[in-house]
Amino acid sequence: MNLNYHSKLLEAAVAEFSRLPGIGRKTALRLVLHLLRQEKETAEALGNSIIRLCNEVKQCNICMNISDSDTCHICNDSSRDHSIICVVESIKDILIIENTQQFRGVYHVLGGIISPMDGIGPGDLTITALEKRIKQGGVKELILALSATMEGDTTNFYLYRKFHAPDLFMTTLARGVSVGDELEYTDEITLGRSIVNRIPFEVKEQ
Amino acid sequence: MNLNYHSKLLEAAVAEFSRLPGIGRKTALRLVLHLLRQEKETAEALGNSIIRLCNEVKQCNICMNISDSDTCHICNDSSRDHSIICVVESIKDILIIENTQQFRGVYHVLGGIISPMDGIGPGDLTITALEKRIKQGGVKELILALSATMEGDTTNFYLYRKFHAPDLFMTTLARGVSVGDELEYTDEITLGRSIVNRIPFEVKEQ
Repeated sequence: MNLNYHSKLLEAAVAEFSRLPGIGRKTALRLVLHLLRQEKETAEALGNSIIRLCNEVKQCNICMNISDSDTCHICNDSSRDHSIICVVESIKDILIIENTQQFRGVYHVLGGIISPMDGIGPGDLTITALEKRIKQGGVKELILALSATMEGDTTNFYLYRKFHAPDLFMTTLARGVSVGDELEYTDEITLGRSIVNRIPFEVKEQ
Repeated sequence: MNLNYHSKLLEAAVAEFSRLPGIGRKTALRLVLHLLRQEKETAEALGNSIIRLCNEVKQCNICMNISDSDTCHICNDSSRDHSIICVVESIKDILIIENTQQFRGVYHVLGGIISPMDGIGPGDLTITALEKRIKQGGVKELILALSATMEGDTTNFYLYRKFHAPDLFMTTLARGVSVGDELEYTDEITLGRSIVNRIPFEVKEQ
């Protein structure tokens, strides 16, 4: 549907919306017409929040998480264990891990993973900043929480080669059968790894 | 996924995006994180186009179409037939009908259809403005191009009762089998109507 919008303002808004991922021109038009039907304040609130976001949001100068101030709330939190750094690809991973409420250490956002196919090398990631944090001392454990893909494994290997030392414990996320999954529907590679890396059976006393 | 965003700016942007139709909090977060990864100018362009749209776009003072000026390009176009008014529900319908390039008259946007279930009565639509246009004279035909639903039929009937006059030809869109459809897959009501309202078979000489 290649419509002629006649209104330059409408056309501009549709064009901008359709640059967002997963939003085509048809959806963009639906969103724009929805905004036109709303009170002027509703549309302005959306526009202003986008402009404020891109102008005011900062990057934490320690872990590269997004933050409203120079250092993020996690790096500023003295009740967290700053000797354990969890290395993640993106800020979204921090949101997801924080949501589990199982981790009380701090993070480091790599900003991607090594992927020669996409032209992303170690130099494009925040590995130098991570090196600086480790050299400052006090870091006991580095958790590599990257994707379980070939690129993730490559990056894990690179980081291991770069940072492994007797006084730095390097770990990675456990791979295995998902909680609630039936064995029948678990893929062979995951099942194979979970047999090789089997763990002692424990009965927790309530 | 009820995430704690920690960043007030991020949270505000996600909240505003998720007010759009068909966009939940998860999609909103994906869009906002996408904007954060872009150049600042890209996000600003989106924000500004939304703000300009809601502040600068006008309603045509004749047909209620959206317009960049006081009167829309269709009402301003002297090559169009101003004696035929096509009555539509929304500005989107104008875009769609214009796209067929089969109509050279003008439009009137009702702003909805009569729907007692949604509390929309004739007073909520731009029927008074349509009445004014008809009373000014020069209108020969009124095409009722509303949805083929019960609400559309109700509105058609209301408009017919209000405006029918010997010198005003009132028509409605043809209902029938879609071009390209097989009879086997056409619903009974549409097929029934298209038999009742059958039209003379014509061979067009090329």
